[in-house]
Amino acid sequence: MTTRPVLKLTHAGALKALASAVAKAESLNVPQNITIVDDGGNLLAFVRMDGAKLLSRETSMSKAITAASHRQPTSRLDPNYEIKLAIAGGGRLTNLEGGLPILIDGHCVGAVGVGSGTGAQDVEVARAALSGIGAEDQKP
Amino acid sequence: MTTRPVLKLTHAGALKALASAVAKAESLNVPQNITIVDDGGNLLAFVRMDGAKLLSRETSMSKAITAASHRQPTSRLDPNYEIKLAIAGGGRLTNLEGGLPILIDGHCVGAVGVGSGTGAQDVEVARAALSGIGAEDQKP
Amino acid sequence: MTTRPVLKLTHAGALKALASAVAKAESLNVPQNITIVDDGGNLLAFVRMDGAKLLSRETSMSKAITAASHRQPTSRLDPNYEIKLAIAGGGRLTNLEGGLPILIDGHCVGAVGVGSGTGAQDVEVARAALSGIGAEDQKP
Amino acid sequence: MTTRPVLKLTHAGALKALASAVAKAESLNVPQNITIVDDGGNLLAFVRMDGAKLLSRETSMSKAITAASHRQPTSRLDPNYEIKLAIAGGGRLTNLEGGLPILIDGHCVGAVGVGSGTGAQDVEVARAALSGIGAEDQKP
Repeated sequence: MTTRPVLKLTHAGALKALASAVAKAESLNVPQNITIVDDGGNLLAFVRMDGAKLLSRETSMSKAITAASHRQPTSRLDPNYEIKLAIAGGGRLTNLEGGLPILIDGHCVGAVGVGSGTGAQDVEVARAALSGIGAEDQKP
Repeated sequence: MTTRPVLKLTHAGALKALASAVAKAESLNVPQNITIVDDGGNLLAFVRMDGAKLLSRETSMSKAITAASHRQPTSRLDPNYEIKLAIAGGGRLTNLEGGLPILIDGHCVGAVGVGSGTGAQDVEVARAALSGIGAEDQKP
Repeated sequence: MTTRPVLKLTHAGALKALASAVAKAESLNVPQNITIVDDGGNLLAFVRMDGAKLLSRETSMSKAITAASHRQPTSRLDPNYEIKLAIAGGGRLTNLEGGLPILIDGHCVGAVGVGSGTGAQDVEVARAALSGIGAEDQKP
Repeated sequence: MTTRPVLKLTHAGALKALASAVAKAESLNVPQNITIVDDGGNLLAFVRMDGAKLLSRETSMSKAITAASHRQPTSRLDPNYEIKLAIAGGGRLTNLEGGLPILIDGHCVGAVGVGSGTGAQDVEVARAALSGIGAEDQKP
């Protein structure tokens, strides 16, 4: 078989997930960087909220790319390996909390990464992105 | 005077500009990469529409960063210098059409960069971002 | 709509395309670097043939990524813009001959990029990759 | 003596090793990223199998480059030094399991690196690459 059928996240879906995440972050009063990538780890949508930490843009991206790559929440790697994997993986692979894959109808169509709050806040906002588009809930 | 008052674009404003640009691109039936940066050239909001060219993500970012840096539309540089400036500027400085500063009440609060269509389409979508938030119209 | 259905190139398909390209390059007696990427520009398969130019690995990758990004053969950009686009696009965007999208059943499932021969030889080998898997023929 | 005779791995050999590794990974039902480099650490052949982790492309490359550099299996470095060596080595030097040198007739002609499974699975697939071309078996 030369090809296999899959699903792709639309920009409408990505923007809806982003809006849900922003609403949750506002309700928590925690400004966040929120990144949505597709299944290939390429940027689909992003927002940096007023007061969010500037450098957490990159951590939110690393979390999203890692969750899309591994198709599982970040923070599930063996802590004994996480630094070695991060270095050997070119710097993008992270085990920080706050990255969740977007699973719809059995397909990983991308991932969301959130950064600027505590790990627990980042996860809560990422889960809001998933629920906003009816994606499978991912407990980290 | 140690400080001076400025205005900053909010994430609500950035997302509203993004939505206006997406609506215009959809009406033109031209999928686009749309980047909003703040006055420091740092990413505020982004979307890649279904079918937009993947590498135009970077050109949309270069256009936005250039427009914010120079506080004028891209494509106003002397063509005899544009390649030299692009290289000396670290690659981000571009003279391609599609980058417009966001001017509000006399302040440059950021810029929008659009890439994936023709130059004229990119400019049209960038202008829609400005009009969506009542920013000063910028003819390129 | 949150998602849309697409096709993905399998590794079996990518390796078959690679083998067809190698066979053509051997018949031409022109060693080549051959890169296959998916629709997101991510590497799927690669080979550097005996005697192929080492640095043409990167040109073959840039050609493949550009063809996947733009969903058209490389070398169709307006020559007046190609250098500006290459710089603003972060260096990967190229207008060199030898990159072709892989179109199957109306979906762009990736691209092939070939580098080390003349432009015409690169294109001929890239077309062999397409015909090896029944993809739509792309004249540059 | 100005020169010394060595052996070089051909692209036919590299593709044969790659195919053996793919067959083993399929039999294990573990999709993998498989990288073959030459004695200079330069990419010879690569495949990313359906469902393999995207970021493990880079870990597979780091493993292959390290095994070629040190002409021994990865994972033999003193754990007390591995992070310091990884950083000082520019990020490519890794002690993760899954990289094996390709030794033929007493020459190190390159290396294979495998990434996306467990360490043990990565090693098993890398050993299959060696056995596929009659290279010396390397227990990690």
